Amino acid sequence: MTALHLLKDPNLHDDRAKLFAKAEAISADLARRGAALDAEGKPPKAEIEQLKKEGLLSALHPVEIGGGGLDWVDGLRLVRILARGESSIGQLLGYHFVNSQYIYWAAEDPDKAWDLGVETVAKTLYWGAAVNPRDPGLTLRKEGEHYLLNGRKTFSTGARVSDRINANAAFGDQVANFVLPTDRPGYIANDDWDNIGQRLSDSGSVEFRDSPVYESDFILPFADKDAPPAVQATFNTPLIQLVFVNFYLGTAEGALDAAIDYVRTTTRPWLTSGVEKASEDPYILERIGEFRAALKASVALADAAATAVQSALARGRGVTDRERGEAAIEAYAAKVNATHVALDVTARIFELTGARSTASHYRFDRYWRNVRTHTLHDPVFYKAREVGDFTLNGRVPEPSLYS
Amino acid sequence: MTALHLLKDPNLHDDRAKLFAKAEAISADLARRGAALDAEGKPPKAEIEQLKKEGLLSALHPVEIGGGGLDWVDGLRLVRILARGESSIGQLLGYHFVNSQYIYWAAEDPDKAWDLGVETVAKTLYWGAAVNPRDPGLTLRKEGEHYLLNGRKTFSTGARVSDRINANAAFGDQVANFVLPTDRPGYIANDDWDNIGQRLSDSGSVEFRDSPVYESDFILPFADKDAPPAVQATFNTPLIQLVFVNFYLGTAEGALDAAIDYVRTTTRPWLTSGVEKASEDPYILERIGEFRAALKASVALADAAATAVQSALARGRGVTDRERGEAAIEAYAAKVNATHVALDVTARIFELTGARSTASHYRFDRYWRNVRTHTLHDPVFYKAREVGDFTLNGRVPEPSLYS
Amino acid sequence: MTALHLLKDPNLHDDRAKLFAKAEAISADLARRGAALDAEGKPPKAEIEQLKKEGLLSALHPVEIGGGGLDWVDGLRLVRILARGESSIGQLLGYHFVNSQYIYWAAEDPDKAWDLGVETVAKTLYWGAAVNPRDPGLTLRKEGEHYLLNGRKTFSTGARVSDRINANAAFGDQVANFVLPTDRPGYIANDDWDNIGQRLSDSGSVEFRDSPVYESDFILPFADKDAPPAVQATFNTPLIQLVFVNFYLGTAEGALDAAIDYVRTTTRPWLTSGVEKASEDPYILERIGEFRAALKASVALADAAATAVQSALARGRGVTDRERGEAAIEAYAAKVNATHVALDVTARIFELTGARSTASHYRFDRYWRNVRTHTLHDPVFYKAREVGDFTLNGRVPEPSLYS
Amino acid sequence: MTALHLLKDPNLHDDRAKLFAKAEAISADLARRGAALDAEGKPPKAEIEQLKKEGLLSALHPVEIGGGGLDWVDGLRLVRILARGESSIGQLLGYHFVNSQYIYWAAEDPDKAWDLGVETVAKTLYWGAAVNPRDPGLTLRKEGEHYLLNGRKTFSTGARVSDRINANAAFGDQVANFVLPTDRPGYIANDDWDNIGQRLSDSGSVEFRDSPVYESDFILPFADKDAPPAVQATFNTPLIQLVFVNFYLGTAEGALDAAIDYVRTTTRPWLTSGVEKASEDPYILERIGEFRAALKASVALADAAATAVQSALARGRGVTDRERGEAAIEAYAAKVNATHVALDVTARIFELTGARSTASHYRFDRYWRNVRTHTLHDPVFYKAREVGDFTLNGRVPEPSLYS
Repeated sequence: MTALHLLKDPNLHDDRAKLFAKAEAISADLARRGAALDAEGKPPKAEIEQLKKEGLLSALHPVEIGGGGLDWVDGLRLVRILARGESSIGQLLGYHFVNSQYIYWAAEDPDKAWDLGVETVAKTLYWGAAVNPRDPGLTLRKEGEHYLLNGRKTFSTGARVSDRINANAAFGDQVANFVLPTDRPGYIANDDWDNIGQRLSDSGSVEFRDSPVYESDFILPFADKDAPPAVQATFNTPLIQLVFVNFYLGTAEGALDAAIDYVRTTTRPWLTSGVEKASEDPYILERIGEFRAALKASVALADAAATAVQSALARGRGVTDRERGEAAIEAYAAKVNATHVALDVTARIFELTGARSTASHYRFDRYWRNVRTHTLHDPVFYKAREVGDFTLNGRVPEPSLYS
Repeated sequence: MTALHLLKDPNLHDDRAKLFAKAEAISADLARRGAALDAEGKPPKAEIEQLKKEGLLSALHPVEIGGGGLDWVDGLRLVRILARGESSIGQLLGYHFVNSQYIYWAAEDPDKAWDLGVETVAKTLYWGAAVNPRDPGLTLRKEGEHYLLNGRKTFSTGARVSDRINANAAFGDQVANFVLPTDRPGYIANDDWDNIGQRLSDSGSVEFRDSPVYESDFILPFADKDAPPAVQATFNTPLIQLVFVNFYLGTAEGALDAAIDYVRTTTRPWLTSGVEKASEDPYILERIGEFRAALKASVALADAAATAVQSALARGRGVTDRERGEAAIEAYAAKVNATHVALDVTARIFELTGARSTASHYRFDRYWRNVRTHTLHDPVFYKAREVGDFTLNGRVPEPSLYS
Repeated sequence: MTALHLLKDPNLHDDRAKLFAKAEAISADLARRGAALDAEGKPPKAEIEQLKKEGLLSALHPVEIGGGGLDWVDGLRLVRILARGESSIGQLLGYHFVNSQYIYWAAEDPDKAWDLGVETVAKTLYWGAAVNPRDPGLTLRKEGEHYLLNGRKTFSTGARVSDRINANAAFGDQVANFVLPTDRPGYIANDDWDNIGQRLSDSGSVEFRDSPVYESDFILPFADKDAPPAVQATFNTPLIQLVFVNFYLGTAEGALDAAIDYVRTTTRPWLTSGVEKASEDPYILERIGEFRAALKASVALADAAATAVQSALARGRGVTDRERGEAAIEAYAAKVNATHVALDVTARIFELTGARSTASHYRFDRYWRNVRTHTLHDPVFYKAREVGDFTLNGRVPEPSLYS
Repeated sequence: MTALHLLKDPNLHDDRAKLFAKAEAISADLARRGAALDAEGKPPKAEIEQLKKEGLLSALHPVEIGGGGLDWVDGLRLVRILARGESSIGQLLGYHFVNSQYIYWAAEDPDKAWDLGVETVAKTLYWGAAVNPRDPGLTLRKEGEHYLLNGRKTFSTGARVSDRINANAAFGDQVANFVLPTDRPGYIANDDWDNIGQRLSDSGSVEFRDSPVYESDFILPFADKDAPPAVQATFNTPLIQLVFVNFYLGTAEGALDAAIDYVRTTTRPWLTSGVEKASEDPYILERIGEFRAALKASVALADAAATAVQSALARGRGVTDRERGEAAIEAYAAKVNATHVALDVTARIFELTGARSTASHYRFDRYWRNVRTHTLHDPVFYKAREVGDFTLNGRVPEPSLYS
C-alpha cells in the first residue's frame, strides 16, 4: 500500500481525505477540552468511542474488509494529528494500530489474521497489549483441553478501553503468542496509572487470574524461549517507536499552536520592548521561528522514516534482517531527534506566553509533562548509541521489544 | 558587614555557623516533605513559624538589635539552602529579606528604620510587599488626619503569612512609600494563587478597602511620580533578582540531590548497558557530571554577584548610579545563567531516574514547574539584552522594579 | 518536472541515475583531495571543467536541448552530494544552477531564454552573477547604440571560472537586468577572495570598466527602481537559500564521513574507557548517533522544502505572492535548521577524532570554517524571525535578494 | 600564601598589583599582534623573553628568593589575562608555572627544591616538560657514574623556548624523575608542531640521544613503576587542568573583546533590523549578554576551584588522598564548564561580527581553533564522568597525569 497506490485509486483518495478531515476535527475538539481532560486524567472511553465511530481505528485495515486501506506513513500522520489535540489519544490510536496490525505480518496462518481483521473492523475493536519485556512475564499452564493464564504486567496502555489484548506468556521453556478478548474471565485492569504525563493513556497494570486461553487464541505456534522470531514479526518495534515519534511531535505542535494563540490574544508586550504587541516582539518572533523550523525538520524525518519502514515491511516474509535493521535505524534516528525537539519546544513555549500563562487552569505544562513522561520509555542515549553503532560500525540493532 | 568582619568576631562566627546549620536542618526536613507540601500547595504557615523560631527571619538584621548580623552574600546562601528543600520557602525567605531590609537603605529617617528593625526582630515579623509595577497601582486619599488606601495588587508573595507589607501607592501626582501591618482594617489577602509552580509561595492578590494609613507608616516623604528615586533606594531590584538566582539554583540542586538518591536506590540498569547498577551507567555518570559542573559555575557566579552588590550597597548614600548599575549587571548576568542552568537541570533529572520516576507520587516534576513558573517573572532575553548593552555600549540599566 | 515524471520516463530515469552516479564519483574524488584543495584555495578550474564534462552543469536544463531534465529537488541533492566532497564545489554548482535557470522564469521573452539555454548546454557554460544588493551597484550609461557598464561588486562567486555573468545595474532611476559573457572587454575578476572558508569558491570582487552592454544582452525591459519584480522572478531567493541549505548539509555530512573514517582507522581508545577500540567507546557512539539523527532530520526538511518551492515554481506566471511566500518560508525554515546542525556537527567532529586529529595536514577544521563563513551570508536570527512572523502573524516575507 | 596574606603585606600587595598591570599591558600588546603571530606560528621567543623581563615567570616563587610570592589563584588569573591577548602565551605561562613549581611539593629534599628555585628566579629560566603518559616513555641506562637518557616524546609544550625540562624515564622496573637543562648534549627539540590551533605553543616532539643524566639531576629517589606517588606530588594534574581552564576562558574573553570592538567599529546593521547601528541590534545585544553571562559563571568557578586546589596544596605533606581528590573534582568541574563555554563563545562571535569578518586577515577563527585544539587534550566526556562518579558514588579520581 504505497503513496503511489493512493494516487491511482480515486475512491481511496477521497476516503483518505475524509479520514484526515475527521482526524483534524477530532483533534481540534480535543485541543479545546485538553486542559479539562488532563485534569481529570480518566480512561478516555468517550474519545475512543468517537475514534471507533469515525472509522479511525480501522484506518490501516484493508479496504476489502471495510478498512481505510491507508499505509503506515498515513497512519502515523493520523497519530500526529490526534496528538496535537491530546497527547494520550494520539498514543492510544498508535498503539492500537501496532497491536491490531501485528496479526497480518506475524500470524502463522493468514486466514486467521484475516478473520481477526474482519471481526476487528466489523466490531471496531480497540486492541491493547500485555507484552512489556522488562516485567516478570505471564505464565500458561495446561488445564484439560485449554490453558490457564496467570500473572501481572505493570504497564498496559489502554487497559480499560481495550477490547482485545495482544499477549505473550511463558509455557515451560516455550513462549506462546495469543490474542484475548478483555471480557475473558480473570482479566483485571487496575486503576493504578497515576503519572505526571500521558494521564489519559490508561497505562496501568493488568492481571490475569486463571484466565482460560483456547487453541483458537494462539496466533503463532509455541516457540522456544531463545528462538529468534521471524524477521517480519519484529516490525512492531520500529513501528511502535514511530508511533512514539509522531505523538511526541504532535504534542509539541499542539503546544506551539496553543502558545501562539495565547501570544496573539493574551500576552502583554514587555515594558522595554518598544513594541505595542507581544506578537511583534523580536525575541518571541525568533523563538517561534526556531521552534517551527525544528519541528518541521523532525516531522520531515518522521515521514521519511515511516516510508522506509513501510517499504521494508511491504517486502513481507522476504524481508531480510539487514533490511529490517536499516529501516529500524531510520525510525530510531527519528526517535532521537523527535525526543530532543519535543522536549525543548514543550518546555519553552512559556518563554513566549509569559508569567501569567503559568496559572494552573491553562495546564500549559501538560505538553511537557506528556513528552517528558513517555520519552523515558527507553533511554534516548541508548537509541543514539544504536544509530551511532550502525553509522560507525555498520551494525544493525539486535531485534527486541526496544530495538 | 563583610566577610572580613566575620573572620574577626568569633562570636558572630559561631552564630553564623549555627544559622547555617539550622537552615540545613530545616532544608533537609523540607526535602523529605516536599512532595506532600507541593501536592497541598497551601500557605506554609508552620514553615514560616519555624523560620521565625530558628532566627532565620532576623539573619540580616544587626547584631545590636538581636539580628544575625549576616551580610547579603550569606543571606542569599541561606535562601539557596532552603530552596534545596522546598523552592517556595527559599523564595519566601528571600522576599522577606529584601522587604524587611529595604527600610535600612531607603528610609528617610534612620531612627525610624532602626525602630522598625527592633520591632521586626523582637516580634520576628514576616515582611511581604505590594509593589508590582505592571499592575494598576494602589491609591491613597486624604481622610481627616490620615489616609485611606484602596486598590488591588495581582501578585503579593506571602500575602497570607505576612505580618508587615511594604507598599507604595499613588496620591495624585505623587507616590507614597509606607509599611502596613496586615491586621490593619480593609487588608484582604485572596486565596487565588493557583499556578503550576511555587505553589507554596502564597503569591495571590491582595486588596485594600479603605485601609487607614497614618503619618507614622510612611518611610519616605511623598515624591513626584516621575522623580527618580535615590540610588540606594533602588538596590531592592538587584537584590530581589539575586534572591531569584539563589532559589532557582537551590531548587535545581535539590532536584539533582533527589535524582541522585533515586538512581542509587531505585533506577534499574538499562538492558543493553552492560553494567550491573544504574549508578555505573556511563551516560548517567556523564550527565550528572555535566549538571554538577553547570550548577557549580552558576553558584560561583551567584556568590560573586552577591559580593559585588553587597559591596556597592555598603557605600550607602555615597553610591553612584554607575556603581549601582555595574553591580546590578553582575546580578543580572547571574540571573541569565541561573535561569538556563536551573531549567535545564530540573527538566533533565528524569534522564537519570528513568520511566518509573514519573509516577505522580514522587512529584519529581515539581522542580521544573517551580523554576519554569518563576523564571518568567521578567523575560530572560531582556535581561541578557541588558547585560549585552552594558558590555557592548557601556550602558547601565535604567533603575526600575525589573532592572 | 516532478518526481512522478521521472518514474514514467525510463530513459530519463536512467540518465538521472547516471548523473547521480557521476556526482557521487566526483564527490568521492574531491573528498580525497579536499585537504590539499583547501590549502591551495585557488579557483577550481579543473573541477569546474569536470562538472562540464560530466554533464552536471546542464542537469536542470530541459531534455529537449540536451539537458538532464532534473527538477530542483534533484538539483539540490546534486549540490549536497558534491558538497560532501568539497564545500565550495557544491556551492559553485548550486550558484550556477540558480544563475543559469533564472532566465527561464524571469526572461521577458521565452525564446530568448530558450536560445540562451541552448547555447549554455551546447557550450557547457558556467554562469556566475554580480547582483549583491548590499553593495553600491553597477551603473550603465548610454554610448551610441549600446551602453557602457561601470562599477564594482565586492563579492561574485565563481568570478574567475564564470563564462556568463547575470548582472543588474542602475540606469538613472531604472534598473536593467542582463547577461554578459566574461570575455567582454573591461570585465575584471580580482584575485581578492581570501576568507577563512569556502576558499575555492572564488568569491572575489569583480569590476566593469566601460564594458559594452548591447540590447541583446538584456533579459528584462528596464524597470523603475522601486517597481516590484514579477513574482516568478523572485524565486531565485528561496532557491539560492536552498542551495545554501544543501551545501551546508553536504559539508557536514562530509565532515562526519571523514571523522568516522578517522575513528575507525586512527583514533585510540581513551585510557579509562575500558574498550579496546575507539569505535566501541560509548560516548563516541552516542555522539555519532546524535549527529546522524540531526543531519537526517535537516536533510529531510531540505528535501521537503525543495519540493514545496519546486511545486510553487511549476505554477509559472500564475503563482501568487502568497504561494511564493509560503514556499519561501519552507526554504527559510530549512535554512535555520541546516545552519544550526551544520555548525554543530562540523565543530564537534573533533570530539570523535581526538587530539591528534588537529594536526594541520588533515585540515579537519575546514568543514567548520566553510560552514561558519557562508552561514553569515545573512543573519540566521532574521531568518528565524521571518519564519516566526509567518507562523505567528501569517505574514510572508517581503521578496528581496535575502528573503 | 593566601589572599589574606596579601591583604596584610602592603609591599606584596603593591608588587602584586604591578605584576597584574604588566600582564594586562603585555596582553593588550599581544591582542594587537595576535593575527600576525598566529599566521607566523613560530616559537614565541621574544614573547617569553618579555615574560622573563617583566618578572612574570617568577610570579609564584617565594618572595624570599626574589619571586612574586603569588598563590595559584593569582597565578591562574595571570594565565587567563595573557590568554586574552594570545592563547598560546597563556598556555606557556601556565605550563611553566606547573613545571617549575612542581619541585616545591614533589622534591624529596627541600633544599634541592629551594636551590632550583633560587637558580630559576635568578636566571629567569623557562621550564618545560617531557612527561606525556600516553607516549612510549623515555629510558635511562647506567653508564659509569651517570646515566644516559634516550627516547622521544611526541608532545612537549615550549620545547624550543625551554631552559629546563621536567622529565621522567624508565630505568628497568623503576621510574626516575629529574630536571635537565636544555643545553645538555643530545637534547633535540623538533620543529614538528603544526596544528590548527595553539600554533605558538611550540608543542612539538623532543628527543634525547644519549643525553647524560647526573645524580644531581634527580629530584626524587627511583621508585617502583607501580608504586603510587606521594599525594602532594600528584597536584600537577589538577593544577595543569586549571591552567587549561584559565587559558580557554582567557581565549574566549579575548575573542569576545575582539568581536565587540569589531561590532562597534565595522559591522553594518542588518537591512531589516530597523536599527541604525549594529550595536543596537536586539539579537546582537542578547547574544553578547548570553556570552558574557556564561563567561562570568565559568570564570567564577575557575577562581573558586583554584582556591580549593590552592587550599588543599597548602596542607603540604599532610594532605590526604581524599582532600586531593575533592579539590581535583572542583578543578575538573571547572574544566568541563570552561570547555563548553569557550568552544561556544569562540565559535559564535561571528554571529555578532557578520559576513565580512571572515576575511582571512582578521584570523577571527583563531580563537576557536585554539580552544578546539587544546580541549581535546583529554576527552571532556570522561572528565564529566569523573565529576559524576564523585557526585553519585562518592569516588575521587584515581590520580594520573590526566586525573
